[in-house]
Amino acid sequence: MNSTIETNSKNSTDMFKVEHKDSYAAWLQYKNIDNSALSNEYKHLWGSLNVLGNSLILETAKKELLSAISSMLGIEPAFAEPTQANLVLATKDSLGDLVDVDFDQLNDDGYVIKTVTSREEKQIFLVGKRDSGVLYAVFHLLRLMQSRNNLQQLDILENPKNQLRMLNQWDNMDGSIERGYAGNSIFYKDNQFSDELNRIEDYARLLSSVGINGIAINNVNVHKVETNLITSILLPKVAEVAAIFRAYGITTFLSVNYASTITIGNLSTADPLDPEVRQWWKEKAEEIYSYIPDFGGFLVKADSEHRPGPFTYGRNHADGANMLAEALQPFNGIVLWRCFVYNCLQDWRDRSTDRARAAYDHFKPLDGQFHSNVILQIKNGPMDFQVREGVSPLFGAMEKTNQMLEFQVTQEYTGQQRHLCYLVPQWKEVLDFDTYAKGEGSEVKRVVDGSLFQYKYSGITAVSNIGNDYNWTGHTLAQANLYGFGRLTWNPDLAAEDITDEWIGQTFGSDELVKETVSKMLLKSWSIYEKYTSPLGVGWMVNPHHHYGPNVDGYEYDVWGTYHFADWKGIGVDRTVKTGTGYTSQYFKENTDRFESIETCPDELLLFFHHVPYTHKLKSGVTVIQHIYNTHFEGVEEAEGLVESWLQLKDKIDQERFEDSLNRLQEQAKHSKEWRDIINTYFYRKSGIKDELNRKIY
Amino acid sequence: MNSTIETNSKNSTDMFKVEHKDSYAAWLQYKNIDNSALSNEYKHLWGSLNVLGNSLILETAKKELLSAISSMLGIEPAFAEPTQANLVLATKDSLGDLVDVDFDQLNDDGYVIKTVTSREEKQIFLVGKRDSGVLYAVFHLLRLMQSRNNLQQLDILENPKNQLRMLNQWDNMDGSIERGYAGNSIFYKDNQFSDELNRIEDYARLLSSVGINGIAINNVNVHKVETNLITSILLPKVAEVAAIFRAYGITTFLSVNYASTITIGNLSTADPLDPEVRQWWKEKAEEIYSYIPDFGGFLVKADSEHRPGPFTYGRNHADGANMLAEALQPFNGIVLWRCFVYNCLQDWRDRSTDRARAAYDHFKPLDGQFHSNVILQIKNGPMDFQVREGVSPLFGAMEKTNQMLEFQVTQEYTGQQRHLCYLVPQWKEVLDFDTYAKGEGSEVKRVVDGSLFQYKYSGITAVSNIGNDYNWTGHTLAQANLYGFGRLTWNPDLAAEDITDEWIGQTFGSDELVKETVSKMLLKSWSIYEKYTSPLGVGWMVNPHHHYGPNVDGYEYDVWGTYHFADWKGIGVDRTVKTGTGYTSQYFKENTDRFESIETCPDELLLFFHHVPYTHKLKSGVTVIQHIYNTHFEGVEEAEGLVESWLQLKDKIDQERFEDSLNRLQEQAKHSKEWRDIINTYFYRKSGIKDELNRKIY
Repeated sequence: MNSTIETNSKNSTDMFKVEHKDSYAAWLQYKNIDNSALSNEYKHLWGSLNVLGNSLILETAKKELLSAISSMLGIEPAFAEPTQANLVLATKDSLGDLVDVDFDQLNDDGYVIKTVTSREEKQIFLVGKRDSGVLYAVFHLLRLMQSRNNLQQLDILENPKNQLRMLNQWDNMDGSIERGYAGNSIFYKDNQFSDELNRIEDYARLLSSVGINGIAINNVNVHKVETNLITSILLPKVAEVAAIFRAYGITTFLSVNYASTITIGNLSTADPLDPEVRQWWKEKAEEIYSYIPDFGGFLVKADSEHRPGPFTYGRNHADGANMLAEALQPFNGIVLWRCFVYNCLQDWRDRSTDRARAAYDHFKPLDGQFHSNVILQIKNGPMDFQVREGVSPLFGAMEKTNQMLEFQVTQEYTGQQRHLCYLVPQWKEVLDFDTYAKGEGSEVKRVVDGSLFQYKYSGITAVSNIGNDYNWTGHTLAQANLYGFGRLTWNPDLAAEDITDEWIGQTFGSDELVKETVSKMLLKSWSIYEKYTSPLGVGWMVNPHHHYGPNVDGYEYDVWGTYHFADWKGIGVDRTVKTGTGYTSQYFKENTDRFESIETCPDELLLFFHHVPYTHKLKSGVTVIQHIYNTHFEGVEEAEGLVESWLQLKDKIDQERFEDSLNRLQEQAKHSKEWRDIINTYFYRKSGIKDELNRKIY
Repeated sequence: MNSTIETNSKNSTDMFKVEHKDSYAAWLQYKNIDNSALSNEYKHLWGSLNVLGNSLILETAKKELLSAISSMLGIEPAFAEPTQANLVLATKDSLGDLVDVDFDQLNDDGYVIKTVTSREEKQIFLVGKRDSGVLYAVFHLLRLMQSRNNLQQLDILENPKNQLRMLNQWDNMDGSIERGYAGNSIFYKDNQFSDELNRIEDYARLLSSVGINGIAINNVNVHKVETNLITSILLPKVAEVAAIFRAYGITTFLSVNYASTITIGNLSTADPLDPEVRQWWKEKAEEIYSYIPDFGGFLVKADSEHRPGPFTYGRNHADGANMLAEALQPFNGIVLWRCFVYNCLQDWRDRSTDRARAAYDHFKPLDGQFHSNVILQIKNGPMDFQVREGVSPLFGAMEKTNQMLEFQVTQEYTGQQRHLCYLVPQWKEVLDFDTYAKGEGSEVKRVVDGSLFQYKYSGITAVSNIGNDYNWTGHTLAQANLYGFGRLTWNPDLAAEDITDEWIGQTFGSDELVKETVSKMLLKSWSIYEKYTSPLGVGWMVNPHHHYGPNVDGYEYDVWGTYHFADWKGIGVDRTVKTGTGYTSQYFKENTDRFESIETCPDELLLFFHHVPYTHKLKSGVTVIQHIYNTHFEGVEEAEGLVESWLQLKDKIDQERFEDSLNRLQEQAKHSKEWRDIINTYFYRKSGIKDELNRKIY
């Protein structure tokens, strides 16, 4: 390691922290509490501390707590005996009989926070089943403090609903991030690991504070250099990063190149049934675990968008995944096998092939064939993180196969962190979608939390939205997406409004106008973005490759299976059984019926499921074409409204974050007009139908 | 210079020459003459040689002649006295009274080839006004030999019609070529000059053989590294390259960064009226000429597509060009000032601004204000090298300003050397276009050869189509474009058919089937390409940025001023005075009238000048929409026909060139279907009008 670089690097992040303090701190502001009554109350509660037990994570918990208390209250709690300390941190193993905790009610990452007043001093116990629970309890307590809650009598029991709560970094070792909109990678630079380890630790803090417990640190598209991440050349560096995350209760995973046996293994095949291939992976797993004993496992994109996979050898995805699973099994590692498999060399002239069908068609028949340490990682929708699409019918369709949901926090199709698009409401809709897999009440959230079919492994993962920008996410308000993803993954039953209020309180403080204004802005933003970009579930009207900005025919005559079929009469993809691709049949009956019928199909997904004339009347009473015009005009007005709303907060938010967000919101308002005019003009020029309200269309 | 690299490099080109002999040799095949009667006749004619005079170029002429004769006849002419030698090469200064030549009939690069039979031996004199003429005479003679002509009695007098016959290399020093489709640069690699100087010399030979006498060796978009080409860091290398070209009668020019005074000159301005700026350029010119005494001058793209220019300082293009011209004046250098100036941040919603008007609007008012050593370099059309567009109305419109025509040999919009598109017929149309500047007979070719207005400097230039591919041009048959450009520039009155025959004979030999087949293929190819890509002069229906492949709306909602305005009723750009942008008024009256009226506007330019309904009936009798369908179906059939034609030549052409071309032609045939289907589908979906012949539209 070059020490000059290291020094520079450290300076660089340190500079960020100082110069961009509020932007960089995100929701862990730990601002000094200037309300003296409350400050005194808190000080009294936290005069002394005891941490029972010894572990890396308990150290982290203590460090976080002391640093936050110092920052918020300017005090340093004294050490006191467990029976007297104001704050006691303990695990099941170290607690003894200091306080009564029913550990049977806690899962591995669960915790209780409990105020005991029976002794001379009021004591708050933060007790986890394991040390990770203690850390989460600390962050919980700090969240309450940051939101200025009354902490006199606490009795909290929390369990994360999902076992795996992960993020996927689509970071490449050259420092670029696939679909990254907030600078370059914090992990890599110039095909080396970054030396700015403190930046990685700060990221780990942010993630741990919202309950994330797993991370895959490299892009699912594993290129040449990154294939070496599982070799002795780079494993020592992976281990360094894993050590940082370990201290925050986060397990490290790697994306692997399915053809590693060929690329780095000197074998001539990657056939999953080939004994040499199997042996190679077993030895490889052993090697990896010798560096990282608690390594999480492999994330795999195989046979997808030109990535290698088992299809090359006439094998199926179960063969491929199981081969890796066997290698990881002795070490309790798992395989996260992505279901994003489809024909990406489709002929646009062929209307019978439907990309939306692909994941289900490929994987459903394999139910029961996957090893118990394989999890299928399924994108929320059957296409690709569009502004609006149906929920993937694969959820709930595989009773005997572990499933995990993949969201995209990074705003690839949703404004690329230059437009405001708060995705918690979208994710809520997906999680609350009832699959009817076991009758009513079989929501997606119950599939992926493992409760519906008692999966051994399951959870929620997402593509991260951070980079080395000083505010992590490019758009400061996009920090809310990362926060919201973590919280929702911890507990999908949380209301979007509550998560939003939590985030605002911690990020911008407790001013009521700020809270009310920002909350409204965030909660409306997905709908606003949808209005000016993506009418009625149509999707894909974006510029190819980079996916920013409007291009109605951008993907219409391409190989990607992404069409709207707009002509002079109408628009939409007929995915019905009766006259279309039959995609609707992949759902359970209740949903099949609902989507199959144009009468019951919800307006917002109409063009995703049906091809209709522009003159078709929506449930809202207006025609499809008039809806397109209306929403595009409305969307621009509302985007302009976001600027107006934000401007009200001028003196209530620090200058940097105010200006940063203002600039982005202004760009959004401007760019939304481009969307409006191009889409309206396109459809007017195609349909020849005038706007009923005679607004300007070019 | 690294000697290892040099060796490798030399090997690399040498390997090309050997392994890809025919592909590499292009039209300078110099194949052994296996017809023994003819061979004997030629041998008899060329038993002895004398070169009168001494110069670098005469050396080149001699070297070329000896090498060609050796290759074709296997003999080496003996030295003989001037009065006896079979072949005598001489200039005006060295000829003495050996033979009677009326030098008044020759211009600087002119020559005579004359057989004299009065003495004991038949003598052929190759006499130039200067040494360059001798070299051209040698190439002329060799062309006749390669085409197996009877050479018994020659009496040829040739003058190039154009004074400046140039090529522009859009090569960047990183080795890339802007709009290059035949590999990387032969001049540069990894931000250094290439060490393969022999490759550059072979290029000089090819160019000289068709009369090219000037070359600008770097991209008109002058980036950071290339800005240094006019500094002492790189001038020694420029001088090395200039020395190579000098030996072939080719003058070297450089593209310069208009803002050099700022970028490399440590001045704070590039204001052309600033005395320090003017002084800087004067000293710079002096420095350049100290390295290259016959340096040609500067090629400048200013105030165009985000390049710096005089507009920044509130000055006009005459101010900018004159400042450079003054600096070059003492050394007889010239400024090639490009007129490709337009608003490239146009709002697509604004139908009143017309990019086609831009060059004329900018430059016409400045007529008479440019120094005598400035030449305005004007693209053939007012847009940008489209498959079909109007001829630039600027030609002939500036009586007092030197003008030069710019063609594009590299096939940016015409199939990128993956499709066959022989451009000589297109260039002929432009050259023969009558501007009516001084009444009938004021063709473009008479403007740019300087005869119409007695320009001091003028000529034709073009963007080159070569790279380091072993056959120079990617598509072997694209060699014909480079050849044809040179020949046409020498003499715009040559018939396309004759140039084509010349090229085929030299390139593939004298087989009649080859000649007939290839000639037909070449001469039809532009029309074929036009049929499946670009109906009725509409243009721009290509993918943005790289410009390959169909995308009807690719440039429709963009900033580049490139629109077709297709809606459900019709298509085209109204450029009339009466109802449109008024562009037609920029022509002289005869042309204004012809283009203004829909009755007289030629079909092939209809959509360039008029917006018409799809149902508008063309002069051909079919409607616009039916024409679109018809030509697209025909175009594909004809593209398939090209493959069929070529296949007939299987045993008549060496395997490499046969296979190379076959592969490209097959790709073209396949890709032409993509064009056909996307364009037909687009217009069917937009107009709702069915193909009268019920062919398959998607």
